[in-house]
Formats: sequence, structure tokens, C-alpha cells
Amino acid sequence: MLILVINAGSSSIKYQLLNMDSNSVIAKGLVERIGTTGGIITHRYLKNGVSDKKQIHQEFPTHVEGMKLIVELLTAKDFGVISDPSDIKGVGHRIVQGGGKFNIPVLITDEVKSEIKEMSALAPLHNPANLLGIEVAQKFFPNIPQVAVFDTAFHLTMPPKAYRYAIPNNFYTEYKIRSYGAHGTSHKYVRRQAVNHLNNQKAKIITIHLGNGSSITAINEKGESIDTSMGFTPLNGLVMGTRSGDIDPSVLFYMVRECGIKFEELDDLLNKKSGMLGLTGKSDARDVDEMYLKGDQNAILCLDLYSYRVKKYIGAYIAALNGVDAIVFTAGIGENDAQLRSLICKDLDYLGIKLDENKNVELSGPDTVEEIQASESKVKIMIIPTNEELEIANDTLNILKEM
Amino acid sequence: MLILVINAGSSSIKYQLLNMDSNSVIAKGLVERIGTTGGIITHRYLKNGVSDKKQIHQEFPTHVEGMKLIVELLTAKDFGVISDPSDIKGVGHRIVQGGGKFNIPVLITDEVKSEIKEMSALAPLHNPANLLGIEVAQKFFPNIPQVAVFDTAFHLTMPPKAYRYAIPNNFYTEYKIRSYGAHGTSHKYVRRQAVNHLNNQKAKIITIHLGNGSSITAINEKGESIDTSMGFTPLNGLVMGTRSGDIDPSVLFYMVRECGIKFEELDDLLNKKSGMLGLTGKSDARDVDEMYLKGDQNAILCLDLYSYRVKKYIGAYIAALNGVDAIVFTAGIGENDAQLRSLICKDLDYLGIKLDENKNVELSGPDTVEEIQASESKVKIMIIPTNEELEIANDTLNILKEM
Repeated sequence: MLILVINAGSSSIKYQLLNMDSNSVIAKGLVERIGTTGGIITHRYLKNGVSDKKQIHQEFPTHVEGMKLIVELLTAKDFGVISDPSDIKGVGHRIVQGGGKFNIPVLITDEVKSEIKEMSALAPLHNPANLLGIEVAQKFFPNIPQVAVFDTAFHLTMPPKAYRYAIPNNFYTEYKIRSYGAHGTSHKYVRRQAVNHLNNQKAKIITIHLGNGSSITAINEKGESIDTSMGFTPLNGLVMGTRSGDIDPSVLFYMVRECGIKFEELDDLLNKKSGMLGLTGKSDARDVDEMYLKGDQNAILCLDLYSYRVKKYIGAYIAALNGVDAIVFTAGIGENDAQLRSLICKDLDYLGIKLDENKNVELSGPDTVEEIQASESKVKIMIIPTNEELEIANDTLNILKEM
Repeated sequence: MLILVINAGSSSIKYQLLNMDSNSVIAKGLVERIGTTGGIITHRYLKNGVSDKKQIHQEFPTHVEGMKLIVELLTAKDFGVISDPSDIKGVGHRIVQGGGKFNIPVLITDEVKSEIKEMSALAPLHNPANLLGIEVAQKFFPNIPQVAVFDTAFHLTMPPKAYRYAIPNNFYTEYKIRSYGAHGTSHKYVRRQAVNHLNNQKAKIITIHLGNGSSITAINEKGESIDTSMGFTPLNGLVMGTRSGDIDPSVLFYMVRECGIKFEELDDLLNKKSGMLGLTGKSDARDVDEMYLKGDQNAILCLDLYSYRVKKYIGAYIAALNGVDAIVFTAGIGENDAQLRSLICKDLDYLGIKLDENKNVELSGPDTVEEIQASESKVKIMIIPTNEELEIANDTLNILKEM
């Protein structure tokens, strides 16, 4: 059975077509620069066992033109992977913000759409774009069930002591200000891979998703997220490519009063100009790693700060869980950056965590589950490739089965 | 030798006169409501082994009138504890913000005064008031050495990975935005008491100062603060009487955009209307404890959140220290609130921390060092009464000896 997964941004559509009988991707791609100039689609596909790529420059005034081209490429006579859009049996959508309500994936109805719209104030950059993705998918796949998979859903098991802030109650009751977290689909996916690999469904797991955005989650023996580092928005927590993560809020007051920053600029400053970028001028960990190895002082500070922040969250979540069986690294940096993994795990043996530095660098291959702890380590240290699209496709499939 | 300790606020002077030969307090008090109406002084003193108290209502247009009355009471014919101001050999001042420079107490010179003034932007509510305290003390004790003891000094051993934020570098290099911490005098004092009590000068200690303001500090085997929960200002970190502590900074953006809060109101909202007060309507832990015992849902959330935040910092600092020999509770709540200590220490045995619930409630007395861990606890759990005035007096005495 074929499932299409859509992740729509304000000027982009990321998509993946999966064959759920083999859990394999048969086409995927990205439409970029929708609504502006210089539009481009990068389309990869698997045809007769051979993978290939097409790149087409074309203007996309709206998401409609983008989705139209995706359908054309998927069904193209010569290199198409399906003969008709109706070959696709379900469409799964990544929705960033599900608020306090959506704790599981749901079939998309008009009511669900209006609830996603209502929650746009909580995720003004994401939910309206996600909704656009739903609209165009419904246009091109009118009779195919569409499913919403929420990035916040997995974290709705957090207890109030983890999701509330110590601010006047009305901000929670009236305005729903609380921690929602993010990357839930990824944390949930790698946690399941981890407990299956360990053959211990009751393992306590700390999942560390380090990508351009980063978050860390404490997952208890029931498989519930009990705390996560992203908060009301993805700004909170770890140091990221361009986001500051945790910061004394009074720094913001000082920036406005003493440093000539306008209040309206703060959001952009902390979300887009901070993190690795703010400290080193580079937002990509690979660039920072290179500078670090050359002894660049800013890069050294940056990776020290980055890894120290992760280390402290590991300690905090071990306290929250009263123990841990495995810590799991995932996503772009978590899966590929041996240097950062080494810095993070250094001097944690009191907590039962000890890395095998050789295993950390000599992985058996990409896309495999790896154990990289030293033999005396009480806690397993794992690398597990994340696959949010597969998780969304599986969630979609499960909804279809219930229909 | 007699040392006077002064802690001047914008509308108050707190003072303590200590006999350093016996480390005992011979008089102490508080002038309140300076510069407004309803001025009052509460003066306690020890005369011929008997302690007594005077309360006088009087208007204090400036700090000068306050200090004048303090001197009059200390030298009063019938109940004075000294015969002449010159009996006092040194005056120690608590200074809140010493910036990145003052890592030890210093003799106050004109240069030191102008540096304290320069750092006022970092502590606008405190440093100008501290400076006023110096000015009036110099007026009434003109030939007596005055010493500045900085609340931030102890934390200047923090490494950059602990004190820097992941924001563009110029905010540090040009504007000195970094974590300074606070309560340094208290953390340093109780740490020394702890290592002496343990007879282990190399013990790794986590000191937990829980008062109206609260902070937690990780202290390594060299006795250096390597991290502390208050940050650029005292707003950061733990849940406090009226301060929020840690919060996703994007909450502030949302409050302004969606909740009708003005940017100018945020500082006050997070510093004075949040924390325990925001969650329960009460800023005093004793009131919240009472509500908690009656099953009040807001109080339950409040203490859960409060204790969970401390618990996570304990875990984070154990990771930072790679171990811990003792955790130390101090200050008003830390020394007296058995319920919160119990909630904080619950389910931390993976970290080697196990409270003896009986010892926790049956203390041998006030003002004594107590060990309250269970016999199987790897980590000592201690209660140590803080004494910032004694520490400031000792620091002052040490400067006098060097002169």
C-alpha cells in the first residue's frame, strides 16, 4: 500500500511516497521558494531498482502549482513511480502544533482543520503552512483519506510539573501558555527502535534529537514522554543551529534597554541569529567542527557550550526518571557528529554513562542501529537513525486500518 | 574586634554588629521605608547577656537619617552596645553586582566606588542602593576601613561553557551579557561549613539556597563554583517566591503579542508577580505548604513544580561535576521546610541520594549542621544554616589583617 507524506512549510513542500509493504521510499523531494522567485523542485525516485533525480526550475505562485508538479512527476509516463494519483491510499501530514488536545494522529475532517487553524497563534510560522499543505493535498487527492500527525502529540503525556511555567495561572487557563515540546514523532520513533533493539519494552530512555533544531526527551518505562527540552515553542532548551535555547529572560529586557535592540527584533535575534551562528558565524555543525579542529576559540566555546547543555539535560532527565537504561542519539548531528557525541558523554561515569571512543567513530554503516558504550557502561549509548516520514506513514496506515 | 555589616537597599538598611573574637552578633536591625512615609527601625541588641528589642517609628527622608539613628542606638547611654562609633574597626558592605571583575572582597576606595557605580546597569535596583550604603557609612565612620563583599564574586570561577549564552558574541564582548549568579556569599559559607563538617576539603558539593530568592550551585573538589542557577540576573533558575525562574523566552513574545501585556510590564510580571505568588496567590512557602496540606490544587502544582525544578538542577549539576559527595540545604526554606526537602529528594536513589524521612523532620535544633540522609545513601544530605553577615564580617576582617 502506498502512503504519501507531506510536510508543508510557508514556502515549501517536502514529500515522501512510501511503499508500506516493504517500508521503503519510492520517491521523495522538496519544492522550494513557493510564492517568491527562483522556484525549484528536487525530485528523487526509485524506478526498476535504480534511483535517480530530477531538478526543475519553475515559478510556484502558490502551493497549488507545487503540488501539481509533484503529482505530475510521480505519475510521469517515462519515469513516474505510479500510474494514477488514486494508487496512493492515504496522505499523512506533519502538523507542528496540536495544542493540548491532539495526543494521537487523527483523520482530517473540517473540524480538525478548523482546530489546526485555531492553534495557529501558538505556531504562527507552521500551522497555517501545514494547513495549506492539507488544502492542496485534498485538491489533488480528493477521495483519499488525509491524516494529521502532530509533532507535539507524543509530549502530551508530560505531567503538569514538567509542562507548566511558574507564571500567573491565567496565562495557562486563558492563553494556554505551557510547554508543548516538538520533534515528538522523531522521539517516539527512535524510542520504539531502541526498546525493540534492547528487547526491553520497559527501558527508560533519553532520546537526544540533534539536528538543525534540537531537543532531548525523557521517556519512562511506559513509553511516555515525561519531559522535553523544547518548551512553549522550539526556542527553548539546547543550543541549536540558529536558536539560543535556554537563556535568562532578563537578558531580553537588557537588550532592549541597554543594547538598542527593538522588542520586535528579539524573536528573530534569538531564533535566527543565535545558537551556533551567533557564536561562530556558522550555523552548520560540520563547519563549526572544522573550525574547532583548527583551534578556533569561538568554535571551541560553541561546542563546549553545546555539549555542556546536552550533558546537563541528560543529568536533569536521569533525575526526573530516577535512572536511565539507554541514551539515544539521533538526527543529522546526533547520528553523524562523533566529536559532539564524545564531548557530551565525557565525564559522565558517575551516572553510569561511558562511551567507547573507538566504537563512536567506527560505525558499521549509515542507517543502522549502533551501540557505542564501553563494556563497563551501565547505560547503553545508542545511535538510531530517525525516520519521521516512516512514522507518519505508519500512523496514517493505522488510521486507515481503523476506518 | 567589632565589625559592622551593612546591606543597603533602595529604601532600607539592614545591619549587624559582630564581635569577631566570639563570632557573635551583639546588635542587629533593619531600617525600613526610607524616602517614603511610615519609616520604622527594628533594633535588636544583646546587653549583659540579655537580648532585647526596640522599635521606633520615625521618618527617614534619606539613608543619612537612617544611619544616624543606627549609630545613636548602638551608642545609646542606657542600652547601647558600644560607647563610641570608633569602637567599630571595620565596615563590610554587601554589594550585589561585582561584574566580571571583582572575584574577591576589596577595600573600598574612590576607584572601587566608581566601578560599583559603573556596574549599576547590570543591577539597577541594587548597586546604586549599595553605593548609598557605602556613602552614609563613610560619613558616620569616616576613619574606619570599609570593605565591599560581592554577591557575584564566588561564581567568577565558572567556566565560559557555564556562564556564556548562545547569542551573538557582541552581546558578551560589548555589553557583558553573561551569567553572573548571586547568593555567592551564602553558597561559599555553607560549602565551607560542609567540607569542615565532613572533614573532606575535596568534597564535591551542591549547595541549595532556598529563600525568598533561590539558587543552586555546583562546587567542585577545589571549592570553586562551576555553575549556578541564577543567571545574568536573579530571575533565572528555580521557582521563587515571586520570580518565575526558567521560562521559554518565546513566552514573553506571546504575552506581548496575544495577551495584552506591554513589554515594559514583563520585568515586573516575571520578577514580582510570578513564582509561588503567580501559581497560588501566596509568595510565602509557609502559606503554600498549608494550602498543600489542605489539598489545594494550585498549591500542589506549585510545590510539585518547585521541587521538580530543584530536582532537575541537582541532576544537571551531578552531571556537570561527574558526581557529588553532599547536597546542602540552606536559607529560610532550605533550613526549615521539611516538606519541600522531602519532595525534592524523592526518587533520586539512582543518583545515590536517599533521605531519611524521620531525620528530615526531627532536627536536633535550629542553627545546627544536620545530616538527614538515610544510612544507605551514598550522598550526604545536609542542612546548614547560612550566615551571610558572618561571612561578610570575616571577609572584612581578613582585609583589615592585610592592611
